[in-house]
Amino acid sequence: MGKDLSRRGFVRTCTAGLGVGAMAMRSVSSAGAPENIGPAPKEVFVAPPIENVRIGYVGTGGMGTSHVRNLVKIPGCQVTAVCDIREKNAEKAAKHITDAGFPKPKMYTKGDWDFKRMCAEEDLDLVYTATPWEWHVPVICSAMENGKHAATEVPAAYTVEDCWKMVEYSEKFKKHCIMMENCCYDRFELLVLNMVKLGLLGNIMHNECGYLHDLRAIKFEGTGEGLWRRQHAMDRDGDLYPTHGLGPIAQCCGINRGNQFDYIVAMGSPSRGLRNWAAEHFKEGDPRLNEKYKLSDVVTTMIKCKNGAAIMVQHDTNLPRPYSRDILVQGTKGIAQKYPEELVYIEGVSTGHDWDKAEEYYKKYEHPVRAALEEASKGAGHGGMDFIEDWRLINALNKGIEPDMDVYDAAAWSVVGPISGASIAAGSAPVEVPDFTRGAWKKPRELQVMRPETY
Amino acid sequence: MGKDLSRRGFVRTCTAGLGVGAMAMRSVSSAGAPENIGPAPKEVFVAPPIENVRIGYVGTGGMGTSHVRNLVKIPGCQVTAVCDIREKNAEKAAKHITDAGFPKPKMYTKGDWDFKRMCAEEDLDLVYTATPWEWHVPVICSAMENGKHAATEVPAAYTVEDCWKMVEYSEKFKKHCIMMENCCYDRFELLVLNMVKLGLLGNIMHNECGYLHDLRAIKFEGTGEGLWRRQHAMDRDGDLYPTHGLGPIAQCCGINRGNQFDYIVAMGSPSRGLRNWAAEHFKEGDPRLNEKYKLSDVVTTMIKCKNGAAIMVQHDTNLPRPYSRDILVQGTKGIAQKYPEELVYIEGVSTGHDWDKAEEYYKKYEHPVRAALEEASKGAGHGGMDFIEDWRLINALNKGIEPDMDVYDAAAWSVVGPISGASIAAGSAPVEVPDFTRGAWKKPRELQVMRPETY
Repeated sequence: MGKDLSRRGFVRTCTAGLGVGAMAMRSVSSAGAPENIGPAPKEVFVAPPIENVRIGYVGTGGMGTSHVRNLVKIPGCQVTAVCDIREKNAEKAAKHITDAGFPKPKMYTKGDWDFKRMCAEEDLDLVYTATPWEWHVPVICSAMENGKHAATEVPAAYTVEDCWKMVEYSEKFKKHCIMMENCCYDRFELLVLNMVKLGLLGNIMHNECGYLHDLRAIKFEGTGEGLWRRQHAMDRDGDLYPTHGLGPIAQCCGINRGNQFDYIVAMGSPSRGLRNWAAEHFKEGDPRLNEKYKLSDVVTTMIKCKNGAAIMVQHDTNLPRPYSRDILVQGTKGIAQKYPEELVYIEGVSTGHDWDKAEEYYKKYEHPVRAALEEASKGAGHGGMDFIEDWRLINALNKGIEPDMDVYDAAAWSVVGPISGASIAAGSAPVEVPDFTRGAWKKPRELQVMRPETY
Repeated sequence: MGKDLSRRGFVRTCTAGLGVGAMAMRSVSSAGAPENIGPAPKEVFVAPPIENVRIGYVGTGGMGTSHVRNLVKIPGCQVTAVCDIREKNAEKAAKHITDAGFPKPKMYTKGDWDFKRMCAEEDLDLVYTATPWEWHVPVICSAMENGKHAATEVPAAYTVEDCWKMVEYSEKFKKHCIMMENCCYDRFELLVLNMVKLGLLGNIMHNECGYLHDLRAIKFEGTGEGLWRRQHAMDRDGDLYPTHGLGPIAQCCGINRGNQFDYIVAMGSPSRGLRNWAAEHFKEGDPRLNEKYKLSDVVTTMIKCKNGAAIMVQHDTNLPRPYSRDILVQGTKGIAQKYPEELVYIEGVSTGHDWDKAEEYYKKYEHPVRAALEEASKGAGHGGMDFIEDWRLINALNKGIEPDMDVYDAAAWSVVGPISGASIAAGSAPVEVPDFTRGAWKKPRELQVMRPETY
C-alpha cells in the first residue's frame, strides 16, 4: 500500500518537474531582446585597418595603469588622452607615456562624466576603460556613439539590459566593443584551447571554471577596489565576476562560433564571510558593522550549452581559501585541470588511470601565440597574459581583422552574472540565456587567436 | 528605447523565474510520502543488545565476499547462512567461514528468490546484502518483515517509493535498516568530519563530492558488475551512485541531525562514453553496438540544505579520467579537499593563501575511530575502511546502540539518485527532497562515530 501511494508520489514529482522545466524554458524565451534591434548582421563585423591606433584611456587605477604600461610598449598605437577623476592617477599614467618618448596625452580629469567630453571632442580610434564596474557601459557606449571603438575591463556589464545595449550600440554605430578578458591568454588556458582544437580531448562534454579568490581584505580596504567593489556585494546576489573562468572555457566550447549558452541554474550558500570579517576587524560603532550583504559566499552556476555540454562556474570571494579559477575541461578522450596543480589525462597517452603533469604537454602543444609573444610579454602583468591581450587588441585594429573576443562574447560571458542572480532569486529555477547573436551563433567560426597568420 | 524594452525583458525573466521557482517547490512539496506512514517515532530507535549477531549473507560476489572475510575476524558475530544464485560463490564464501573455525553456514542457492526462504526459515539477527542494486530493497524488506535487522550495500534504493518503503518497514517492524557506506570511514573523510566537529572549518557553507570513476571496462565485462550495472545506464539518467561522496559530506553537514536536504537541481552532459567504447571494442553485429544509454556521461547535482549550505555532487563513470570522489568541505574559517591531493587551508593557521598538505593535520586531528581500529583493519578492503564499517555495524548491534548510519540516512542519501534524475528530466528544474524523518531532523543528534565510548 505504502508502495502504491509512494509510486503515485514519485510520478507526481516527475510530471510536476517536467511541467516546471518546460515552463521555465518558455517563460524566459525572449529573455529581454530589444524588439527593435532587428536581425544580427549578415557578416562578421570588421573595421578598416588603423595604422596607428590613437587611444583615450579611462580609469588609471591599478589595472588601467598596468594596461597603459603595456600599450606604450606595443607598436601601432599611442595613448593620446587620459581620463581619471583623480588627477594624480592621470598624471602618473601620463608620465609612463612621456617616459616612453610619446608626447604628453590630453588630460581629462574634470569629474565623473569628463569621459563624455573626451569621447565627443578628442580625435581617437579607441576608448579603453578600466573604471569601476558601474562605469564600463556608460564609457564604452559614449565611445561608440562618438565613432570610437571601445574596449573595457571585466565584466563589461552586469545587467541584461546593458548587455543588449552594448550589442545594440556596436551594431548601430559599426564599432568594435571588446571585453578584455586577460585569462583567455594565460598559459594553461591557451594550452588547453590548443589541445581542444587539435581534438586531443575529443568532444567536450563537461567543463568547470570560476573565480575563487579571498577578496575580503580588498573589499574592505580604504582605497582602490575597496571604495566600490563591496557595494556590489550589498546590492546583488549571483556570480558577480564570471568571466575570468568562463572566457577561456567558452572559447573551448565554441560559444558564439557554432555553440551557444542555452539556460542556467544557480545556487548560493549563505552570506557570512564579509559580516564575520567586519565583526573581527572593526570597533563598535563602525558603520561597516551594519552593512547587509546580498552576495552568497559561494555561488555555483551550471550552464547548459546548445550542443548539450555543461559548464559549472563558481564565484567564491568572501571566505578564507587559496586562489583558484578552477579550470577543468573534460571530453570523450581526456581531461585537463589547472588547480591546485596543472594536470592532464588523455586516454591511450597517459599511463593507467593516473594524471600526467602538464609540463610534458607544454613541450608538444604550447599555444603558438604564447611562443610568438614570449619575449615581448616578459615581466608584464599576471605572467605576461595582460600584455598578450593588449597586443592582440592593437594587432586586430592595425590589421583590420576580427578581434579575438567580440561584442557578442562580451555580452554572453557577462550576462551570466545577472542570469545566475535571477536563478538564485527564483529558488534555483532554470533561466534561459539571451542569444545576443540572434541565431548567428549557429555558423562555426574559427577564433582569431587560433590563426597564426594573425600574430 | 532598447534600454526600456530590455529592462522589461529582464523583469519578465526575473518574475517568470520567481514564479517557476515557487511553483517547483510547491509542485513536489509532498514528494511521495505514503499518506498512511504517520508521524516519525518520538524516540530514536535502538534495539536490544545482541551478544552474538547471527548473520545471513546474501550476494557473495566481490564486495559480499570481502565483507564476509571481514565479519569472520570481528568478535560478536557469526555468519550462519549464505545465499547466492551461484553455488560456487556461496561455497567460496562458506570456505572463508569454515577456514576461520566457524561451522559451515546453511546454504541458500535455489535461485533468485531463495533469500525469502532464508529470511522466513533461518534464525538470524541480521541479513546483510551485497546483491546487484535491484535486489537490495527486496532482500532488506524481506529481512525486516521476518524480524531481522537489515544491512545493504550502496545505493540502498534508487526510486523514491523504495526509499519510503525502507523507512516504512523499519518503523513498522522495529528493525534497523542500515546502508553500508564504506567511504564514511575513509581516513581523510574521517579527518575532515573530526575537524568539522571541532569547529576548525567554522560554519560549513559549501561542499563538493562525487563518484568520478571510469567504469567503462567494468560495465562491459562479461562477469561481475558487467552482468547488470550497464543496464542501469540504459534505463535511467541522474546520479546513479551518489552515496560514496555524499555520505561523508552529509555527516559533516548534520543531515538528519539538525539539518536536512531541501531541494535539488541537476544537469547532465550528453551520453557518449559507453557508445564510443562499444564502437571501439566490438565487431559489427555485436548486439552491444545497438544499446541506447539514457545516462549522461557527467551528472552535476546541487543540493540546497535547510540551513542554507550547498552541496555539489557529481557522477562521472563513462569517460576516461583518473579516479576521484571530489571531496571538498568549505566553511567560514577554512577549507579541506581530498583530490587530486589531500589539502587543508585554515585561516590563521595556514601561511599566506597557500594550501597545507593534510599530513600535519592527521598528526593533530586523526579521527579516534581510525586510531582505535588501525591494527585490526590492516590489510582489509579499500585501505581498511571496509573493515571499520563492518566492525561499527556489529559493535552497534552488540551494544544495542544507534548505528552510525540509520534508515533515514539510507533513504536521504539514496534518494538523490531519482530526484536528480527528475530534475534533469525537467530541464534542471528544482525538485524538493522528501523529508523521510517527517520533521525529526530538526532535533540535533550526535553521530555515534563521534562518541569514543562506542569504540
